[in-house]
Amino acid sequence: MNREEALAIVKQQLTESRYLHTIGVTDTAVYLAKKYGADEKKAELAGVFHDYAKYRPKDEMKHIIKEQKMPELLLEFHSEMWHAPVGAYLVKKEVGIQDEEILSAIYYHTSGRANMTLLEKIIYVADYIEPGRDFPGVDEVRALAQQDLDIALLQAVKNTISFLLSKNAKIYPETLETYNHLVQKK
Amino acid sequence: MNREEALAIVKQQLTESRYLHTIGVTDTAVYLAKKYGADEKKAELAGVFHDYAKYRPKDEMKHIIKEQKMPELLLEFHSEMWHAPVGAYLVKKEVGIQDEEILSAIYYHTSGRANMTLLEKIIYVADYIEPGRDFPGVDEVRALAQQDLDIALLQAVKNTISFLLSKNAKIYPETLETYNHLVQKK
Repeated sequence: MNREEALAIVKQQLTESRYLHTIGVTDTAVYLAKKYGADEKKAELAGVFHDYAKYRPKDEMKHIIKEQKMPELLLEFHSEMWHAPVGAYLVKKEVGIQDEEILSAIYYHTSGRANMTLLEKIIYVADYIEPGRDFPGVDEVRALAQQDLDIALLQAVKNTISFLLSKNAKIYPETLETYNHLVQKK
Repeated sequence: MNREEALAIVKQQLTESRYLHTIGVTDTAVYLAKKYGADEKKAELAGVFHDYAKYRPKDEMKHIIKEQKMPELLLEFHSEMWHAPVGAYLVKKEVGIQDEEILSAIYYHTSGRANMTLLEKIIYVADYIEPGRDFPGVDEVRALAQQDLDIALLQAVKNTISFLLSKNAKIYPETLETYNHLVQKK
């Protein structure tokens, strides 16, 4: 599947602004893949499809989480956490992408996890720093991404945890695991 | 056991400055117990003994964690996390305190947990705000403790997580659970 075919499929699933975000993530992911030696084609497809399930009805996502035996803990957290694992499932089922590296990059693009693959890190960071993003701390992570992907990832995760703390919002345990794993490695 | 007997026992286990901290925690815990309707005598004993194991050798603490089948995950985190559960064990074994409310207030005084008891909250907050404490944010928590114990506890936990993030230090998962549970309740 080439880039244009993939974008045509995902466009049907997204709002206009989310589609523009998706193009930003895709271009950033390809750039980071080139820079850090990942498979550029896989980075492109993972970028295109990372938000595939973003606008699925909550009930459908909830149903898939239960039916597919994803961690039920997800349901105790904000539905914002659901579209990533559900997206990985639907991209396989509906789009026919079988590549496990691509699917896991979609699955973990919101929470991260301990021991992330290179492609998972690239999609997480690309999602955070794509050119359309504009929030406090994003320029620092953009600069770090030019130097060291793990340090950029750590800063993005720290910013995310701090943001959630400032909103009194629950933090998904796997996000903490991502952080703990990265600082342990450092 | 009265206050003087208890203090005489714990004094042998602590440095002079940690002993002064202990008196501060004890007085604050009794004050909070009176204010929020907890058992003042239990608050007093939990305050006196909360740091009982603070200066035990790391090897001894590690041995007790393994032998007593405490969560082995503790060993992957900073030894600062060990003295609370180990203290609960030693206070029972060496001092002879059997009261489970007192022991669990000692056990959880560093990590907290979901569904904390009133006495656990009191010791956690007293440890954070006792008069000898002087760090950014402590006055805010002192003021909150006059109004609402849960909100003071939440702010103390948030400050702790933010502090650890700023140091790139690992965060114990039960600390996150404490936070998630408190914001969910709110």
